[in-house]
Amino acid sequence: MIIHMEKSHTENQLHRLKEKIESHDCKPHVIFGETLVTISVIGEVSKISLREIESLDGVAFVTRVSKPFKLCSIETQRDDHKVRVGDLEIGGNSFVTMAGPCSIESEEQTLRIAHAVKKAGAKILRGGAFKPRSSPYSFQGLGEEGLKIMKLAQEETGLLTVSEAMDLHGLELCYKYVDIIQIGARNMQNFSLLKELGKIDKPIVLKRGMSATIEEWLMSAEYILSGGNDKVILCERGIRAFDNQYARNVLDLNVIPILKKLTYLPLIVDPSHGTGYRHMVSPLSRASIAAGAQGIIVEVHDRPEEALSDGPQALLPEEFSGLMKDLRKISEALDIRFISDDVEKKKVA
Amino acid sequence: MIIHMEKSHTENQLHRLKEKIESHDCKPHVIFGETLVTISVIGEVSKISLREIESLDGVAFVTRVSKPFKLCSIETQRDDHKVRVGDLEIGGNSFVTMAGPCSIESEEQTLRIAHAVKKAGAKILRGGAFKPRSSPYSFQGLGEEGLKIMKLAQEETGLLTVSEAMDLHGLELCYKYVDIIQIGARNMQNFSLLKELGKIDKPIVLKRGMSATIEEWLMSAEYILSGGNDKVILCERGIRAFDNQYARNVLDLNVIPILKKLTYLPLIVDPSHGTGYRHMVSPLSRASIAAGAQGIIVEVHDRPEEALSDGPQALLPEEFSGLMKDLRKISEALDIRFISDDVEKKKVA
Amino acid sequence: MIIHMEKSHTENQLHRLKEKIESHDCKPHVIFGETLVTISVIGEVSKISLREIESLDGVAFVTRVSKPFKLCSIETQRDDHKVRVGDLEIGGNSFVTMAGPCSIESEEQTLRIAHAVKKAGAKILRGGAFKPRSSPYSFQGLGEEGLKIMKLAQEETGLLTVSEAMDLHGLELCYKYVDIIQIGARNMQNFSLLKELGKIDKPIVLKRGMSATIEEWLMSAEYILSGGNDKVILCERGIRAFDNQYARNVLDLNVIPILKKLTYLPLIVDPSHGTGYRHMVSPLSRASIAAGAQGIIVEVHDRPEEALSDGPQALLPEEFSGLMKDLRKISEALDIRFISDDVEKKKVA
Amino acid sequence: MIIHMEKSHTENQLHRLKEKIESHDCKPHVIFGETLVTISVIGEVSKISLREIESLDGVAFVTRVSKPFKLCSIETQRDDHKVRVGDLEIGGNSFVTMAGPCSIESEEQTLRIAHAVKKAGAKILRGGAFKPRSSPYSFQGLGEEGLKIMKLAQEETGLLTVSEAMDLHGLELCYKYVDIIQIGARNMQNFSLLKELGKIDKPIVLKRGMSATIEEWLMSAEYILSGGNDKVILCERGIRAFDNQYARNVLDLNVIPILKKLTYLPLIVDPSHGTGYRHMVSPLSRASIAAGAQGIIVEVHDRPEEALSDGPQALLPEEFSGLMKDLRKISEALDIRFISDDVEKKKVA
Repeated sequence: MIIHMEKSHTENQLHRLKEKIESHDCKPHVIFGETLVTISVIGEVSKISLREIESLDGVAFVTRVSKPFKLCSIETQRDDHKVRVGDLEIGGNSFVTMAGPCSIESEEQTLRIAHAVKKAGAKILRGGAFKPRSSPYSFQGLGEEGLKIMKLAQEETGLLTVSEAMDLHGLELCYKYVDIIQIGARNMQNFSLLKELGKIDKPIVLKRGMSATIEEWLMSAEYILSGGNDKVILCERGIRAFDNQYARNVLDLNVIPILKKLTYLPLIVDPSHGTGYRHMVSPLSRASIAAGAQGIIVEVHDRPEEALSDGPQALLPEEFSGLMKDLRKISEALDIRFISDDVEKKKVA
Repeated sequence: MIIHMEKSHTENQLHRLKEKIESHDCKPHVIFGETLVTISVIGEVSKISLREIESLDGVAFVTRVSKPFKLCSIETQRDDHKVRVGDLEIGGNSFVTMAGPCSIESEEQTLRIAHAVKKAGAKILRGGAFKPRSSPYSFQGLGEEGLKIMKLAQEETGLLTVSEAMDLHGLELCYKYVDIIQIGARNMQNFSLLKELGKIDKPIVLKRGMSATIEEWLMSAEYILSGGNDKVILCERGIRAFDNQYARNVLDLNVIPILKKLTYLPLIVDPSHGTGYRHMVSPLSRASIAAGAQGIIVEVHDRPEEALSDGPQALLPEEFSGLMKDLRKISEALDIRFISDDVEKKKVA
Repeated sequence: MIIHMEKSHTENQLHRLKEKIESHDCKPHVIFGETLVTISVIGEVSKISLREIESLDGVAFVTRVSKPFKLCSIETQRDDHKVRVGDLEIGGNSFVTMAGPCSIESEEQTLRIAHAVKKAGAKILRGGAFKPRSSPYSFQGLGEEGLKIMKLAQEETGLLTVSEAMDLHGLELCYKYVDIIQIGARNMQNFSLLKELGKIDKPIVLKRGMSATIEEWLMSAEYILSGGNDKVILCERGIRAFDNQYARNVLDLNVIPILKKLTYLPLIVDPSHGTGYRHMVSPLSRASIAAGAQGIIVEVHDRPEEALSDGPQALLPEEFSGLMKDLRKISEALDIRFISDDVEKKKVA
Repeated sequence: MIIHMEKSHTENQLHRLKEKIESHDCKPHVIFGETLVTISVIGEVSKISLREIESLDGVAFVTRVSKPFKLCSIETQRDDHKVRVGDLEIGGNSFVTMAGPCSIESEEQTLRIAHAVKKAGAKILRGGAFKPRSSPYSFQGLGEEGLKIMKLAQEETGLLTVSEAMDLHGLELCYKYVDIIQIGARNMQNFSLLKELGKIDKPIVLKRGMSATIEEWLMSAEYILSGGNDKVILCERGIRAFDNQYARNVLDLNVIPILKKLTYLPLIVDPSHGTGYRHMVSPLSRASIAAGAQGIIVEVHDRPEEALSDGPQALLPEEFSGLMKDLRKISEALDIRFISDDVEKKKVA
């Protein structure tokens, strides 16, 4: 932490600042420049709140140098970290695909789509039973009934499953029926929920909030890790920007190289919600693997015009299958381990 | 709802679209222009999802004409609507002030500040017992202990009270101890929580999410109203924009005239979180009343350098007192009813 | 400037950094913390580019402490600075109103509106002869013909005039015909034009770019000041944000208290472009004066449905007159000098 | 154009609206719904200004259905369009690389880097002689001297060249010395400059403004096309968003599939300015080709710590060479024509 005093500060104000720092068992190192007095704080500064120092009289400006996140930081040197789900390892130099309908609508719809995505090479089935809808009048999901269908699809196809929990009740149910629990963008800073996620032993897909900074996102992961669960998979899903005429969000692929420098947690991309339109999903999925993402989560629906939510962004099964072929080719060109059934078979053989 | 077909659409696609519309008991009205075919949908279109139509083949573009919110719409013609709390009526041509510390830190601190804000003319005491903090390592609030202190301050000073709930458990406790329940920006789209708020009979201060559009904000209010609770007070608290070097957020005062045209719900402004810095709070409070807001919620602390959260944005009691004088002068200049003790006394006299 | 080394930096890298700093006649002050090495640079650091230091091997992070703007900084202690135009002084504890049509459309239209705004108390007539239009197919302004009409209106009414220049040619013409030259949001970083503005002796209204940070805006002012012209009036006109459904821009009134702390240059607000809708202009004009702005520039048109540009945001003359009454009342409540004809008369009397 | 009347509109207002539409030789088609009256305008609506209609009494809301851009629209069906420069064809299913230093600093530096990028496979040399700098105190470029060096580098290496013009004077000089003229983000809506670009016969790289919508960007291209020059290459260079802690901008790759649907103009990506940091350039270059961009423009410098501008985002020659190998592999995987020396040679062979 670096503190800059106002030009007009008094000796007394500087004295109070130093006492404050020392009260947190840290050491103030004062540098007298030609026009500015700067204090460098040495010690375990994470205990000191930046805003607390800022509110002292005579202080002009405070910068935090060290990162506010600790457990999920790359500096803990766990870069061989993977998140294990069933027999899969997510992270490192590999790429995984989660695919399926936005909402679980019926047993028949779910099984039909599950078989289709499995055939194309997906290893994890996505599907929502609890749907965060901006309107109280929209379809809110099948609830537990939907999760039972997910379980059935898992048993029938052998796919692993991921589904979203929106509250404690939903979390208990998801825990019971699915393999991976997804936390949506709107709940990224639902701190009460994050604390509960720290107590369980299932992998979490933590989506980025619509206007969450990278640090806020990592601090939300930190909530889960500090509770005891390190199976966190980050998921970029588009940010809110100034032009939504042709896309619902701006998919922010900058985060791929940035997060690689900051954390060892795996990162996947959701090009379906990140764009909102079918024709954009495949190009941006290809971009994601090429930039170094460790997976994607995409919506696939065979009758999008009947989908109860987000039909316009769902790939048709044949489009998804074409995408998988392209992703595999790029993975080979760039020497990335492409997780899919036949890769696993190859490993066995 | 207005639908535009792609230039290359087929007769069959148009036929399917019309069937779809009719399946929702609405009527498609087709207009053949020189270059475009447009369908105007007549009937109760709120049942039809815009995205559902968008996903049909041959459809180029869909616009919703009618508003997605109903119960909170100005068109329900309840513009004499007020939210009653204790003996106060919030809304209409009046202005109310909520003030107090960011966090409840101790009984002594709270009572001290409560007396100070009451003396300056505030009618409602704010104070947080559950704090949404981006870091798991920051002070998380005193919890129920804090709410008991709020109750005590209420009994000692006669001030009404407002405090934030972050989850169901907190909601139950807040319901027990305080007069108004605040929902923070990060929970504006916590739909599970919103549904519970619809079931209770206390006023709700619903803060705008950091990047929530005006419609999303009103749809969150709609969740509460559709559950049966119409005592919703909207609260603007600053949006996230591209420059946060000199302020934490951009306080969006545009919403004051906009919401007046859209809804009858009262609107207050939080210039403390909306800016993040003490020196900005008074100017933007004055701006809020001048633009037509129906109240403010401001942070006041007598020892901001000791505050456990957000010290740099808290007004000192004497600054708050000066602000109240200015607000009163503006209210007189613009003929706004200024709610404060002496006004009430005047009414009695 | 404060520099933080990467944990893994080498002694050699630190050595090179120190040489680099010394090559700019500055002194590096190295602090060895427990986990970090920090260098505080002492001397005339404005000569050193932050990005230059950032690109050195071993450097983790650089912060600039001192402000990049010098001549327009409040620290030059010219807080009694005013911009003189004709017999008016803009700035300080006063409030000025510029009003008129978006575009000069004809002599008759301009004179009609000029008389109307003068009657309501405006002192400066606004009107565009060169219009920056996003479409090449839209009305581009009357050019020199329009400026001649402005001159005529000035002679007929005694109002001072302001009009926009978009390039060198337009600047020469504006210089010839009007009293104040306006630079639009899209040209805020037209550095070639800014350099020319530094060479002339007329006041400049410098609008903020649509997504310009406060520092970028002040640096554009700095271009003009460093060229020799200190008659710069800053103008907030709304920023681009994520929701433009009900307003074209978000008028950012946060800048009013912020700029007061950073610069002595006067600040006016454009609530017409800042919102885009007539019904928002008066509320946000009242907010501007209440927050401490030193003026507004508003669009007034008596036949907005015939306006060749931006009709929906123009106030009708009677609305403008009502607004002026409110602004005068607020100025009296807050002890602000309200510049208008009768005030001037009072001064004479 | 679709117009919605306010519920409370009068017959007279509707009549006036119809007259207005007819005065533009268009036909109003009125639809009386249950709660709303909607008017569909048929004919050459591009002549009618949306804002003009909006300002009529009784009008609630106007939507434009047809696109405001014409000449650059995909609907002109020129999807085999390429921009020819020297012996290269940019656009279609091909990928071109422009590379070189941010600023031309000296003859020696430029030739050294030119040889390096040529060796790695680039076909076009970038280098700035006129630099748009936010500070008047920063290096502003070598001017004509720099352009002469570009010419020399072109003659020595056979590379084509691209350089930025900021005003008319610079445009004349660039026209004289380089093959492609670049218009920077800050000048995307410098309409006076755009009009001049329409009159020349050299290719233009038109960068997207920092907060320009896709339509605004295309309308700026439309300015150039409507002037007579259709050799426009669009360039995405990152947009301004809410988090710039770890990257200077958010590179918006969504535009790649979006623009493919809207226009036939080629699109390249600038991952150097789009991110601001060297370590992000290669991942996002790979993403760009994988998503379907038709080229990149990247900064390369062999002594970035000595660069007079933007050193931290320049790739080292060996990094650039590694990137070119990856791009070539992806182009092969996805069947994209990769424009580089040996490809050209292969074609000859």
